Amino acid sequence: MTINPTAAILIIGNEILSGRTQDKNVNFLAIHLLHLGISLKEVRIVPDEEDDIIEAINSLCSRYSYVFTTGGIGATHDDITSRSIAKAFKVPLEENQEALSILKAHYPETEFNESHHRMALMPKGVTLIENIVTHAPGFQIENVFVLAGIPVVMQSMFQMLSQKLERGEQIHQHIITCDLQEGDIAKDLENIQNEFVNISIGSYPFFKGNGWGVSFLLQTRDNDQMLLALTRIRRMIDSYFGMITLDEKVG
Amino acid sequence: MTINPTAAILIIGNEILSGRTQDKNVNFLAIHLLHLGISLKEVRIVPDEEDDIIEAINSLCSRYSYVFTTGGIGATHDDITSRSIAKAFKVPLEENQEALSILKAHYPETEFNESHHRMALMPKGVTLIENIVTHAPGFQIENVFVLAGIPVVMQSMFQMLSQKLERGEQIHQHIITCDLQEGDIAKDLENIQNEFVNISIGSYPFFKGNGWGVSFLLQTRDNDQMLLALTRIRRMIDSYFGMITLDEKVG
Repeated sequence: MTINPTAAILIIGNEILSGRTQDKNVNFLAIHLLHLGISLKEVRIVPDEEDDIIEAINSLCSRYSYVFTTGGIGATHDDITSRSIAKAFKVPLEENQEALSILKAHYPETEFNESHHRMALMPKGVTLIENIVTHAPGFQIENVFVLAGIPVVMQSMFQMLSQKLERGEQIHQHIITCDLQEGDIAKDLENIQNEFVNISIGSYPFFKGNGWGVSFLLQTRDNDQMLLALTRIRRMIDSYFGMITLDEKVG
Repeated sequence: MTINPTAAILIIGNEILSGRTQDKNVNFLAIHLLHLGISLKEVRIVPDEEDDIIEAINSLCSRYSYVFTTGGIGATHDDITSRSIAKAFKVPLEENQEALSILKAHYPETEFNESHHRMALMPKGVTLIENIVTHAPGFQIENVFVLAGIPVVMQSMFQMLSQKLERGEQIHQHIITCDLQEGDIAKDLENIQNEFVNISIGSYPFFKGNGWGVSFLLQTRDNDQMLLALTRIRRMIDSYFGMITLDEKVG
């Protein structure tokens, strides 16, 4: 039996918890991990507080194959991710010489100050993650990948590191949307779910202009079973005189 | 000393973890809790799996004044929130008679089926949360509020229950944006942070069309201190010949 890798995301940021910023990093990482066959199992959002970050890291890194953190690796006092992760792994925080060279190459010598030095402070023994957008690198320590919070920077870092991740077997996804009401077909859908135990079937009702509808999202690593289950769902919709408005493979 | 209430959010939903859906509930709840003076301290997103939901509930409800869950209270097999929460609180799952009446009043008798009954299954002893959009109610058990996942329904439920929440002292927020680079002012900003220990000062760099900028988000329950800190930050920006592009009270 293949053991497929799993992942968790840890978003570090008061700006998300205060509602100032709508997080976009979870959705990007979720989609890209899925493409790599890696199951995203949990997300946590914690404030810029050392104890909260340490506790979350300790809890997540022992449970999942990979942990991706975003946020808190900039140049200001509220950027405490590196320090907290050093404490979580019980290793010293030190000036990473490779990171320092990268930063020095980017900033003019006359402008290079204590705060730029700060961005090179990392737990001892990390591997850098290149940042082609703003240069200040992220890093990997054991199974934890420490990324920037700014979406465009985080995305670029993820592209850089994604080849290093162990892929899982392909995860197939398919969505079928129809104009039926969820409550009417719930029993039939449950029977289909019980028959196809290796498929996760989600049911998502929605309301649009002229009435209710429901989307079924199927996810599995077994494409043969997927095709059978899709046929069963299409027949079920037909038997209720429902109309399919969307029927497509995702991703 | 007043003890201000705290909160956590638990998002239950494979659709968020698979990337199919961009979560919007965290941001709505974050903004509205802040307005009530309630500090949002943590968010977790877990799959539609009983063990994960139970563990998250047990962990969060003992730590924060309030826990808000969204998702998993519909009519289909993948809606397992009510059952999981009953188990977390070690109370039986039963057909809530008040919820059943509400649902029966809404659905024609000939259409009322087992799946509609399912939406009335709740932990014993809950208080209902009215749903004026789609009628199927949410519920409160101890300090946990169980809400729908569809944003428009969740929002309406939150408006219904928000009067019941204990408010905290007002949280003041102010944002100042300027055209400086974060690294240049980091040391001065840290000095201001160290002087105003009761203010949380976040620094958020961004890139826009013609260059870099940075936003400072100040949050505190002490408005007098806020006014002093804002003056210090405006002066700091001025001393670097920066231009303020936004300077406003939030919320």
